[in-house]
Amino acid sequence: PFEVDWSAEAIELGGYEDFMLKEIHEQPAALQATLAGRLDAGGRVDLSELGLDLSGIERVVIVACGTAYHAGLLGKSALERLARVPVEVAVASEYRYGDPVGDEGTLVVAISQSGETTDTLAAIEAARAFGARVLAVTNTQGSLITREADAVLLTKAGPEVGVAATKTFLTQVAALYLLALGVAGVRGARPAGELEEIGRALRRSPEKVEEGIELLGERLMSEAVGVFAGARCALFLGRGQSFPVALEGALKLKEISYLPAEGYPAGEMKHGPIALVDEQCPVVAILGEGTLREKTLSNVEETVARGARVIAVANEGDAAAERIAQSVLPVPTVPEILSPLVSAVPLQFLAYHVAKARGLDVDKPRNLAKSVTVE
Amino acid sequence: PFEVDWSAEAIELGGYEDFMLKEIHEQPAALQATLAGRLDAGGRVDLSELGLDLSGIERVVIVACGTAYHAGLLGKSALERLARVPVEVAVASEYRYGDPVGDEGTLVVAISQSGETTDTLAAIEAARAFGARVLAVTNTQGSLITREADAVLLTKAGPEVGVAATKTFLTQVAALYLLALGVAGVRGARPAGELEEIGRALRRSPEKVEEGIELLGERLMSEAVGVFAGARCALFLGRGQSFPVALEGALKLKEISYLPAEGYPAGEMKHGPIALVDEQCPVVAILGEGTLREKTLSNVEETVARGARVIAVANEGDAAAERIAQSVLPVPTVPEILSPLVSAVPLQFLAYHVAKARGLDVDKPRNLAKSVTVE
Repeated sequence: PFEVDWSAEAIELGGYEDFMLKEIHEQPAALQATLAGRLDAGGRVDLSELGLDLSGIERVVIVACGTAYHAGLLGKSALERLARVPVEVAVASEYRYGDPVGDEGTLVVAISQSGETTDTLAAIEAARAFGARVLAVTNTQGSLITREADAVLLTKAGPEVGVAATKTFLTQVAALYLLALGVAGVRGARPAGELEEIGRALRRSPEKVEEGIELLGERLMSEAVGVFAGARCALFLGRGQSFPVALEGALKLKEISYLPAEGYPAGEMKHGPIALVDEQCPVVAILGEGTLREKTLSNVEETVARGARVIAVANEGDAAAERIAQSVLPVPTVPEILSPLVSAVPLQFLAYHVAKARGLDVDKPRNLAKSVTVE
Repeated sequence: PFEVDWSAEAIELGGYEDFMLKEIHEQPAALQATLAGRLDAGGRVDLSELGLDLSGIERVVIVACGTAYHAGLLGKSALERLARVPVEVAVASEYRYGDPVGDEGTLVVAISQSGETTDTLAAIEAARAFGARVLAVTNTQGSLITREADAVLLTKAGPEVGVAATKTFLTQVAALYLLALGVAGVRGARPAGELEEIGRALRRSPEKVEEGIELLGERLMSEAVGVFAGARCALFLGRGQSFPVALEGALKLKEISYLPAEGYPAGEMKHGPIALVDEQCPVVAILGEGTLREKTLSNVEETVARGARVIAVANEGDAAAERIAQSVLPVPTVPEILSPLVSAVPLQFLAYHVAKARGLDVDKPRNLAKSVTVE
């Protein structure tokens, strides 16, 4: 593990065309920095820095906005699967006014890159009313949220200039995996060996993300962008952990290309959204592995029968994906639970290149600010 | 309260142009039938028909698909506010494969109009694994789900022919309000007087829905459809209970007009989706009342500053709505917690008229089936 020095020159472009592109490429280093010191070579997680007793947690509520909300959904999935504790994920602007239910056994995890997001800070206050303990996940040391929380799990993505979050998303997800492994270990919810195996794979995730970036050459990306020629909208589909990845992919596209794009659990298509599907509404499918891959493939086949052009994010060498999709964006194989760390990356590139093809400013999309300190 | 006879001729058009339009107009009667015998003149709820002990519930999980999922989100809001019990709402196709967490204190509420929705049935099975009790909310006596569940709360909407659910949605919401009042009463979570007051208002809701339908004349609807001229997409915004209503309004529009439309909690706009906003992306705002109305108005104002044309669903006489919106669809005033029953209706009409203006078949939208008995 190497040390990352986020000094002034780090906020320069360093040869990249835009900050967003630079920040996408910085993800392996950002992940590495976030994991360093918290995960040993044996895959054991150490979160003693938090000073929190993780054993008495009966329920977790994750509050966040925007991209951080999508990281929260992935946190729910990991916490429930590994630590077997029920988790609710709430949009902070909703939670703060919702008169939320909870008690002292509730751990509230508040995620905010800037640490200054007004709604997230107010959500913490709402949770204080029922005696919750609060853990902040933030990228900004000394921010307001670090003063409001009982404990802080710092992501170490370094400064992010592009308005559309990329490396801060990946590091939030990694931080939540650390938390899930930590809580699971304390609760003994899964065999230590299983947790350590995931821990070791998490430790290797920066290399896997790097490998994934290298897989996405210019030809593949321009094929994928070609699928978007003449598109009026897009649907992003996934199941399980690939569903929040789909939401995040759709959000990136909305943010910087201004194309209407919605993320859906693939199984929901036939309950309404498939009516949208035609030649002008490409489907971006995050396939994943195992049963969920099979099920997603079958949902995607139904959209193909209705004229959809398809971009698939699939493990390298997935023959069914090659058969069904106009464009395949390959990801390296990682243990299933960590797959969002690799599958989010092609979607960042996709949004980036679609927006660039439309001649848009990817770093400063219209109507948006980097951190939201108003309601 | 009158008895509704859902005999064969009820499934004919009876002078309406389409089943969807007929079924929108049947909502007062469908609500009435669903409430009858379960709510007395004093506003007291009687759910003894369920034969379920509601006192030992520690947590509720609602599983559903599509429109029923949106009803479930409203059920969460009512159950949490009135009964003070934590509620999770899950998309059935996700829940079934998610290795869900729970125990004997968990009540699973499975909502399916047809009672045959494959994913919802499979979600019940997944919940059985941890010992959950299961309550089915369905419109179809004798359906598969009635055999799988421990108890059944039947909605009495009668047969629904239009593929886009309307009256079955409203009756699902009413059924969940009954459940929330019932659980709240048993738990003593709120003063009986408060619950009875809501109960009495719920009893009057069929008249209020009728009143609401009468408010929406031809001129108002054609003004609203005019806002959609040249639209490339739409955003539906609401906060609190108006957020699931926004999701449902967006789904109706997607289903029958094929326009990309997404529902968002209004406070999330600035975290990304506001980038979509321009003259070609109308905003449909469900304003509601009180603090949330203020906050939503302020979010909508930001979209107006960026060129959005606005349709507001607002209480009659809302001057700020008139000022800010190109088109106001008025709803009668009801107690805040029941507002979805009236505010969902103008959005059904909106989707209907936008689709008709595009010359589409509203009863049989492309790509969709009425009930989904495959994965």
